[in-house]
Amino acid sequence: MSSRDLKELSEADALRLLAGAPLGRIVFTRHALPAVRPVNHIVDDGQIVIRTNPGTVLSTEVAPSGAVVAFEADELDMDEHLGWSVIVTGMAQLVDDPEEAARFKARLRPWVAGEMDQVIRIRPEIVTGFALVPRSTPDGDASAQ
Amino acid sequence: MSSRDLKELSEADALRLLAGAPLGRIVFTRHALPAVRPVNHIVDDGQIVIRTNPGTVLSTEVAPSGAVVAFEADELDMDEHLGWSVIVTGMAQLVDDPEEAARFKARLRPWVAGEMDQVIRIRPEIVTGFALVPRSTPDGDASAQ
Repeated sequence: MSSRDLKELSEADALRLLAGAPLGRIVFTRHALPAVRPVNHIVDDGQIVIRTNPGTVLSTEVAPSGAVVAFEADELDMDEHLGWSVIVTGMAQLVDDPEEAARFKARLRPWVAGEMDQVIRIRPEIVTGFALVPRSTPDGDASAQ
Repeated sequence: MSSRDLKELSEADALRLLAGAPLGRIVFTRHALPAVRPVNHIVDDGQIVIRTNPGTVLSTEVAPSGAVVAFEADELDMDEHLGWSVIVTGMAQLVDDPEEAARFKARLRPWVAGEMDQVIRIRPEIVTGFALVPRSTPDGDASAQ
């Protein structure tokens, strides 16, 4: 398996790929320690929207305080070592408006049983993404690897 | 698609699944903000080992200071909504011993071109894992969902 180059994605491409991914990972800080949870999501009007149970750290601490979180999704081919990864950083926020929350819940079916009644949105402030692409070497010998 | 229950994994099962995963995500704090990078890894003697370029934040800030990081891997079936996720939390550390670093490098081929000469290990202090399993309801109507 030859090595791959990293190609930076535009913000538009990154958000488009993120919107098409069925699953991502929300990354946050808890008691000053890094924490991460896999979660399914939608992208709505440039924001990432997830559901969680009302009693979770995300619902009771992270989102109410408007903490900055990261959200990562990737689709990386284990055999070919090709694919992409997108990382969004921004403030988390509870979706309190009942009509808005209901609209999101209708589109966002949780995988896990439970209330999952709290809707949280992330407003992206930094969007980074890269694609793993076949390596192009200065002397053009990529095909020889 | 019916909802799934979360079943907690034993630490041994969690580390076994993590060792079999081709890819994980290292989660750390940078300038007090949450950060995350996808990376391939191995599990050696209960420790997670990754490679990175010498100039990255992981190499120059996170690991040298012995910062606490999280490492997450998952294999979740997008159609069936079954699978698992494992999250390890522990201190990151540079692998400075040349023989030890060489031994890890021989087993850990980076996907991305570049030096990738720095080896970092994570010593797990907290290991949590869960499996998504078909829901079992108290009245036994799981099959009716």
